[in-house]
Amino acid sequence: MTVTNDADSALNQQALKYHSEPRPGKISVELTKPTETQEDLALAYTPGVAEPVRQIHQDPQAAYDYTSKGNLVGVITDGSAVLGLGNVGALAGKPVMEGKGVLFKKFADIDVFDIEVNAEHPQEFIETVMRIAPTFGGINLEDIAAPHCFEIEAALIDQLDIPVFHDDQHGTAIIIAAGLLNALELANKQLEDAKVVVLGAGAAGIAAVRLLMAMGAHRNNIYVLDRKGVIHIGRKDLNPYKFGVAADTDKRTLEDAMDGADVFIGVSGPDLVSPEMLASMAPNPVVFALSNPVPEIRPEVAHRVRDDLIMATGRSDYPNQANNVLGFPFIFRGALDVHASRINEEMQIATVKALQALTHEPAPQSVLDAYGLDSLAFGKDYIIPKPLDPRLKVAISEAVARAAVESGVARAPYPSHYPEI
Amino acid sequence: MTVTNDADSALNQQALKYHSEPRPGKISVELTKPTETQEDLALAYTPGVAEPVRQIHQDPQAAYDYTSKGNLVGVITDGSAVLGLGNVGALAGKPVMEGKGVLFKKFADIDVFDIEVNAEHPQEFIETVMRIAPTFGGINLEDIAAPHCFEIEAALIDQLDIPVFHDDQHGTAIIIAAGLLNALELANKQLEDAKVVVLGAGAAGIAAVRLLMAMGAHRNNIYVLDRKGVIHIGRKDLNPYKFGVAADTDKRTLEDAMDGADVFIGVSGPDLVSPEMLASMAPNPVVFALSNPVPEIRPEVAHRVRDDLIMATGRSDYPNQANNVLGFPFIFRGALDVHASRINEEMQIATVKALQALTHEPAPQSVLDAYGLDSLAFGKDYIIPKPLDPRLKVAISEAVARAAVESGVARAPYPSHYPEI
Repeated sequence: MTVTNDADSALNQQALKYHSEPRPGKISVELTKPTETQEDLALAYTPGVAEPVRQIHQDPQAAYDYTSKGNLVGVITDGSAVLGLGNVGALAGKPVMEGKGVLFKKFADIDVFDIEVNAEHPQEFIETVMRIAPTFGGINLEDIAAPHCFEIEAALIDQLDIPVFHDDQHGTAIIIAAGLLNALELANKQLEDAKVVVLGAGAAGIAAVRLLMAMGAHRNNIYVLDRKGVIHIGRKDLNPYKFGVAADTDKRTLEDAMDGADVFIGVSGPDLVSPEMLASMAPNPVVFALSNPVPEIRPEVAHRVRDDLIMATGRSDYPNQANNVLGFPFIFRGALDVHASRINEEMQIATVKALQALTHEPAPQSVLDAYGLDSLAFGKDYIIPKPLDPRLKVAISEAVARAAVESGVARAPYPSHYPEI
Repeated sequence: MTVTNDADSALNQQALKYHSEPRPGKISVELTKPTETQEDLALAYTPGVAEPVRQIHQDPQAAYDYTSKGNLVGVITDGSAVLGLGNVGALAGKPVMEGKGVLFKKFADIDVFDIEVNAEHPQEFIETVMRIAPTFGGINLEDIAAPHCFEIEAALIDQLDIPVFHDDQHGTAIIIAAGLLNALELANKQLEDAKVVVLGAGAAGIAAVRLLMAMGAHRNNIYVLDRKGVIHIGRKDLNPYKFGVAADTDKRTLEDAMDGADVFIGVSGPDLVSPEMLASMAPNPVVFALSNPVPEIRPEVAHRVRDDLIMATGRSDYPNQANNVLGFPFIFRGALDVHASRINEEMQIATVKALQALTHEPAPQSVLDAYGLDSLAFGKDYIIPKPLDPRLKVAISEAVARAAVESGVARAPYPSHYPEI
């Protein structure tokens, strides 16, 4: 499908209407307790509110009992890398942050305050989030440009005792890893042996490489490329994050890297992979062309070149959409449910495995109905769960909560509404 | 009424239950737009959300059209002066901030994000609020200790283009001024001539003096007292805010100041005014004993000493409750409705006059019903409107919006749902 200007224009008008009518924006704050009488208000505010204050002053964990903190995630941006639009600034990022909040609520019943931060330097952003952190049960960093996003997330994880998660990094990496393990299973290959090309060394690309390495991929089998070509150890222009994924190799160009590769992961831009490059890949190639809306190579082109292809995109109108909504709502749900102090690698890998497992089980009828499908079975066209699959919430949240408990970062009991550990 | 320990204990248990069951806290974030289908979600998030981002990037005012900013107030504290409990810290202030949000929503349909800020120094707090300000259409500062609250508010008003309002200062001052003008009318006295004693030189006391001076009271007629006695120009321990209200006088003690005074305003602590002091006041004395829950002098004591007394307290179980909820929800409603860049003195005085006027009009039946009253007419027992009076929303909001337009700080047209200017 080629996106035409007319279709764009119609979508844009529809989107402006959606965002402005009947009232601006997509969220409201609502009251969950009675407020009809003077007596109600005397409990909600003074004098009743004093006792919860005293309880929390004595024991900070009581905030989880008497305030909305425990179900509240801050979706926080500096507006430096909003969608594919670049550094539009904090305020212009607000519709996206509100939208992220919509997804948190819709999929995992998590309340979100979107916070747009004017910050010139990473340290300013870090300080700001540190200071407002008491407000929240968890923090989802969003649309922050690399490489600052790495420094920011690391500092906040280090210094805060609530989960801090940069979804553009780990959320994307988790979905990629889940789909990739499934694709390799179909291709009858092992992650440990696979030669992997990653085009794009931003938040998603770097995080994907790190997660794949944590799950067994070998650094020497991974070629990451930025705008200057293959990131290799001989380059003098690498920041620490790129240096961490640099290969000891003579390959220099995308053509070099693609030759004989088992896996291509594109988190870059439209049409950057040629049919010739695809043709040069190993048998049963796995291509995750995640640039959106226009992939690195279009599925109809790719399938003409290779009939042994296993492919995913970021688009909902092709099979195997890599969509972060499969992860972040449920990852936070599980983390919040056990008052996890962080979202560690164990919890991320548990998410990967739970996503992977879901595709091997028969999809419920409601999923078939939602997508107008007759059947949905594990295979080349179904290596990633569907976003509207109702099983995701329990499966992922439970896996994350369990991993939090087992890795020692939970501070509340494992909830009774999940299957027993 | 003496508050007993048993009554306290029962209220405390009821309050903890109210705050924790069936779910913790008092608020949730809800979705205002359809999110049922993939098409809905494609408008709420990618790809639809891109166009609102572009519009706001081109024109920041478009954020009022396409996001929740225009109806969103940040209730922000550092937890340094929470209720009468003192510096309990940011997190322990959260129940109060959520409660303030409840009142904003209940009374004026304004959405509130409560934000608790860990800040050691005023400059850190100022920086933090500055940076997160794009999120909001207005900022209500709450429970910040004096004198830092003055510096913080002034800096934020100076540097931000949205309303910033420290309710503990101006909200309280506005209610005091409205009630006081009514009381003086009944006492047949003029504000310009009245001798006024203000006990307590914190946020509320200083702001009340400033507002009364802006409305015509004479500095030489006002004696403000802190813990060390009368604030006079000879004292060497005064910060700039106290120096600004210092009198050129030989009076040194509360006894000195009360002798012959027309008005006493207490924003201090329990039982600090003796029957003898009250007896020494001028005829038809006005006593606003606002310390809560125990006033500076108890009404039953005061009325025994003076039968010409006009009295208000902070309590709902006596006539004339000075309650900030009469002001802040509607002040922000009016300010937000015209996208005011600030809440200036004109808007504050407009609020005073609107509150004052309301008590002169017959109270609607719903107010009588809400308070179990047979009648309610302007007089010694009715100089301040009742919090559950439904006329407040239109009367105050309209007065504020009108004053914003007339004083040139409105950036949107005067709304058509208000009476014409």
